[in-house]
Amino acid sequence: MQSFMYFNPTKLLFGKGQLGQLSKEVTKYGEKVLLVYGGGSIKRNGVYDEVTNILKAADVEWVELDGVEPNPRVTTVRKGIEICKEENVDFVLAIGGGSVIDCTKAIVVGAKTDVDVWDIISRKVRATDGLPYGSIVTIAGTGAEMSLSSVISDWKTKDKRAWVSSFSRAKFAIIDPTFMTSVPIEQTVNGAVDAMSHVLEHYFHSEENTPIQDQFCESVLRTLIDVTPKLLNDLENYKHRETVAYASTIALSDQLNMGFIGDWGTHHIDHALSAVHDVPHGGGMAILFPHWMHYVLDETNVMRFKQLATNVLLIDSEGKSDMEVAREGIDLLATTWASWGAPSKLSDYNITEETLPLIAEKTIETQPKCGNFKRLTEQDVVEIVKSSL
Amino acid sequence: MQSFMYFNPTKLLFGKGQLGQLSKEVTKYGEKVLLVYGGGSIKRNGVYDEVTNILKAADVEWVELDGVEPNPRVTTVRKGIEICKEENVDFVLAIGGGSVIDCTKAIVVGAKTDVDVWDIISRKVRATDGLPYGSIVTIAGTGAEMSLSSVISDWKTKDKRAWVSSFSRAKFAIIDPTFMTSVPIEQTVNGAVDAMSHVLEHYFHSEENTPIQDQFCESVLRTLIDVTPKLLNDLENYKHRETVAYASTIALSDQLNMGFIGDWGTHHIDHALSAVHDVPHGGGMAILFPHWMHYVLDETNVMRFKQLATNVLLIDSEGKSDMEVAREGIDLLATTWASWGAPSKLSDYNITEETLPLIAEKTIETQPKCGNFKRLTEQDVVEIVKSSL
Repeated sequence: MQSFMYFNPTKLLFGKGQLGQLSKEVTKYGEKVLLVYGGGSIKRNGVYDEVTNILKAADVEWVELDGVEPNPRVTTVRKGIEICKEENVDFVLAIGGGSVIDCTKAIVVGAKTDVDVWDIISRKVRATDGLPYGSIVTIAGTGAEMSLSSVISDWKTKDKRAWVSSFSRAKFAIIDPTFMTSVPIEQTVNGAVDAMSHVLEHYFHSEENTPIQDQFCESVLRTLIDVTPKLLNDLENYKHRETVAYASTIALSDQLNMGFIGDWGTHHIDHALSAVHDVPHGGGMAILFPHWMHYVLDETNVMRFKQLATNVLLIDSEGKSDMEVAREGIDLLATTWASWGAPSKLSDYNITEETLPLIAEKTIETQPKCGNFKRLTEQDVVEIVKSSL
Repeated sequence: MQSFMYFNPTKLLFGKGQLGQLSKEVTKYGEKVLLVYGGGSIKRNGVYDEVTNILKAADVEWVELDGVEPNPRVTTVRKGIEICKEENVDFVLAIGGGSVIDCTKAIVVGAKTDVDVWDIISRKVRATDGLPYGSIVTIAGTGAEMSLSSVISDWKTKDKRAWVSSFSRAKFAIIDPTFMTSVPIEQTVNGAVDAMSHVLEHYFHSEENTPIQDQFCESVLRTLIDVTPKLLNDLENYKHRETVAYASTIALSDQLNMGFIGDWGTHHIDHALSAVHDVPHGGGMAILFPHWMHYVLDETNVMRFKQLATNVLLIDSEGKSDMEVAREGIDLLATTWASWGAPSKLSDYNITEETLPLIAEKTIETQPKCGNFKRLTEQDVVEIVKSSL
């Protein structure tokens, strides 16, 4: 492995009843809180009421930013920053899934500077400070709660950027799988695919001597393949919600990729794809990942794909060539996701060849060094997206 | 799983060259440092010179506490506390393995109170503050660098206590496996057994729905069984040192046991054993664990032992009863450790029946609730230790 630094001081409060810790945690950091949330599902499932009752009981004042989009926009981030500055907010509380948390990460760094936040998101300027924040996770998948990274879109320019800052680390994450039992089936599928796609990005690295990390990745992937269909047949099953929630948090907690950097090329392509077409991240990944795999698979890296096929997809390799086993694994991954109801081609989102050059151009423009396991050119991206149509 | 809190803010700096981060890290916290180390191996292998040169270059003053014992004594802890108070030490730097780090954990809390430190170690008084500290790990095995717990002995009363405090968490841990290539074979074996014994303690829990955690434990165990004999045949092999060092840090980092508490009964017995006989922890665990397993194994828990046998020891279960598979797994674990040169019976340390009642009494006196997977009485401890003679 490479030399590495692992530092993840986010306090993870996981399981039934952990909202009971909220008051103690929030009052450590703030007296005036900005609540950030999305389309209002937290009002329907009672989480909003629970949270605001806790804040009232703790004499904590709050203001609100609602309506954060599934692919959060910089315009919404700017609104949140404005509220923080006008209202002297000293703590931000995200309630939702990855979009709400990603938006919050940008708000907290933007609130402590006069620089326009897009300059930070587009990596022109480094953040130098950030408000403290915590999150209450109501949708599993993105793992945003234990990670530094955030993805924000500028809808006007059709730009979508992934960025990180050491100031975008949450103080705490409260994850009660009870809150997830009402998540609809499509978002549940997208979340499971999203979590798997993070683990797969880690898994496709080129570093030597990582037996523990590789087996950890395989453990999470196998578990999600086992549990997700059970959950989809029984959406209110607490035990399965718990497993998927735990898997998705661990997937992006930096605990699976100590000592190496995964590929992430498919993520870059999906960011460009959804900047242009606003497709859900998990859906985009379900389509793109198997096509990326088939495209980059060759004689030099076939053993990695074979390992995935045998250890995760449990393909029997008896009497087959390495390449056959590898391809069978990729196909089984694709059909597994399709069997959950995930999209398998871009035409499922009415995307045609027309925007293909734009998607490829934006991928490489945003990420000139696209992919670590396999470096991709703009033409490579064109081919991968074309095969996904 | 149970609801849980995971919070581990120790910064892990792992790999070749990470000592280069020392100056930056130490100067964040202190101007006057106490160096804590053991019998002087760090002077022979050059680590002492490297560290002190870094401190000199950073204009950091230091004082020293050397001679920390393999089972660190409270008398040594008290010496360290006295130095901290007299010299106005504001940061402590442990250089060594688990004993040095455990001693340091007690020094940092003792240095911030007028209470005698044994009252904190014996859990009469709670620590309310602690000096910041970091560690440079030169021997793998105990995982003390990312954990809260510490074990300290009072040699006069033959008491050995495990204790924890939220103030005993390190600010950073520097682990460069290069420093470990000169560790002698016996300590290397003990370290690998110690790391495995931590994972085994986690593994024997009674909580439901922990598929990811269980597979993580199995991954670390399988890897240590695979890599340790290779390392023992090639002690200077960096790659194998790296794997064992990584495994032992992760084993006690709280990352493998989120949502449940393992057994820890065997650890409690070993603490009493070594309080009476001063045997090395890894050696004691190699002897006691298989005997604990055979003793507690019954029809109600046989599937857990079978899972260990098939998933970790890779026993073929074809045509065998669950109990046969379970017992075969335990025996293979014992012979594996013996094949590395670990002791397999207490007579290897010249321990006879004579002290058996004292060991059992001390175990239960120190830990009245001994064992979570299986609660042990004093008579149970007698039987387990007797079978280990």
